[in-house]
Amino acid sequence: MRQAVPLDCEKAKALLQSTDTFLFDCDGVLWNGGDVIKDANAVVNKLQELGKKVFLVTNNSTKTRDEYVAKCAKLGFNCNEPQVISTSYLTVQYLKSLHFDKKVYLVGSSGLSREMDAAGIRHLGEGPDVMEGNVFDGRLDHIRLDPEVGAVVVGFDSHISFNKILKASSYLKNPDVLFIATNRDERFPMEHIVCPGTGTMVTAVAVASGREPTIMGKPSREVFEALRRQHGLDPARTVMVGDNCKTDITMGNVCGLRTLAVLTGVTTRADLERLVADSAADGALAPQVPELVAPQIGDLLPFL
Amino acid sequence: MRQAVPLDCEKAKALLQSTDTFLFDCDGVLWNGGDVIKDANAVVNKLQELGKKVFLVTNNSTKTRDEYVAKCAKLGFNCNEPQVISTSYLTVQYLKSLHFDKKVYLVGSSGLSREMDAAGIRHLGEGPDVMEGNVFDGRLDHIRLDPEVGAVVVGFDSHISFNKILKASSYLKNPDVLFIATNRDERFPMEHIVCPGTGTMVTAVAVASGREPTIMGKPSREVFEALRRQHGLDPARTVMVGDNCKTDITMGNVCGLRTLAVLTGVTTRADLERLVADSAADGALAPQVPELVAPQIGDLLPFL
Repeated sequence: MRQAVPLDCEKAKALLQSTDTFLFDCDGVLWNGGDVIKDANAVVNKLQELGKKVFLVTNNSTKTRDEYVAKCAKLGFNCNEPQVISTSYLTVQYLKSLHFDKKVYLVGSSGLSREMDAAGIRHLGEGPDVMEGNVFDGRLDHIRLDPEVGAVVVGFDSHISFNKILKASSYLKNPDVLFIATNRDERFPMEHIVCPGTGTMVTAVAVASGREPTIMGKPSREVFEALRRQHGLDPARTVMVGDNCKTDITMGNVCGLRTLAVLTGVTTRADLERLVADSAADGALAPQVPELVAPQIGDLLPFL
Repeated sequence: MRQAVPLDCEKAKALLQSTDTFLFDCDGVLWNGGDVIKDANAVVNKLQELGKKVFLVTNNSTKTRDEYVAKCAKLGFNCNEPQVISTSYLTVQYLKSLHFDKKVYLVGSSGLSREMDAAGIRHLGEGPDVMEGNVFDGRLDHIRLDPEVGAVVVGFDSHISFNKILKASSYLKNPDVLFIATNRDERFPMEHIVCPGTGTMVTAVAVASGREPTIMGKPSREVFEALRRQHGLDPARTVMVGDNCKTDITMGNVCGLRTLAVLTGVTTRADLERLVADSAADGALAPQVPELVAPQIGDLLPFL
């Protein structure tokens, strides 16, 4: 049984010896917003110098893969495009695997629209779409639906609006229209506020439409399966490093990977202690419990 | 066991003899948008002429009680303010019962803000509140929270936005801040589209904040309890007439009222048949099954 054991010197050395692939979540593990988390870039670069494979595995759908590479370069991480697995990329790969040739109604941001453009997938665009006046004054006769839409994709969208939820759920009235969500992360905790995550937008559309989406991102095991198909990874020699036990650590455990939680993001030390205690009584929580825990990823540096 | 028995001549006469109070849901029972459902006004008026008590019990929070009275007058329903129990009214009554003297952060429309104004409850207003630019460009340092806010109230809001969900969940970080929702109706079905209900807005805030709201509207039994306190109603001689089995009929059954479903709104005949069949195996569905069912409320008219 996993018990979130602290990563001491001995555990760190053993982990490095017994693994050859590191999967890193980004926000809350490598950086917070535009700030590198202490020594995270040194760890990522040093691991690669030592011959370890490194992938960045993020539920964030607001950037394209090349925008991630540019961010990495700016923040001092050595990383190229095939090393980035974002949910915008996974969504496009999924649609391509289905030979999807209709249009996408998009509730999301430019990360998704640009990945779709690059793959030749047609979509109705992103950005503000706000209803004028009181919805109950008219009969919404002005709402026009595009009969070519064959999928609704929901990612992070800071322009989420009544109009967008209405249109997304109206398209989903047709059971042949696909419902795809990048992820269901609930929130990004910040010091003075709570920033709503993609899960708030996805759940709004799910409630209005009465349908459940196919999820692209963590904890969906499809994230690791896509990597395994392309790179022939051995789960037993792969470690997932994440700050969110519900998404990162669950995906790692479900796929049979080693798991390391860091406390620089969503899951706090108090959360983790509660999780370990509660999982003893409630087996459904077990996949969220990491094998190892470290205050921050930089704590690996002395052992590299 | 209730089985949604069709309201034939005999059942209709028996119902009229054995009840003295009628609670009517509005949208989907008495009217759809601005159109009276056939003979609904004649039924409501005739019942009152025969000495029956009539109340309109709506989860809609977009209008004040006097706006409902005006709508009734326009559509030919005899009805005065004490007969209207709306969720905007219930919300204000609830806050008053707690001697609430802080400010409300409102995600809702003018029905709520005007009822609060009339009761002297301070709030931060309603209407558009949209975030400019990309939320991830900055650190959201410009978001200011009002330290006097002591409650978040969520009702139907066609101006729902990322900014509003963010502010509501940020206020709810403080466990002393109340979280009140008018209702959780999921959607209003319309011919060509799906119109999102208050439940989509409430769930978005619940997911982002990680908190569950106190619900004012049906199926909460508080709706009937408020009526009973004021008017001394006998549950066994009261019938709840509604188009939504999840809200109207559940509230009626949970409070020990007679229940009559009509098929002019949310619940279709197919839904009802599935519900009756499924409730045999799944007892949790039993409160949604009405005692009686009629195609429309006007079918009562020949017996009055």
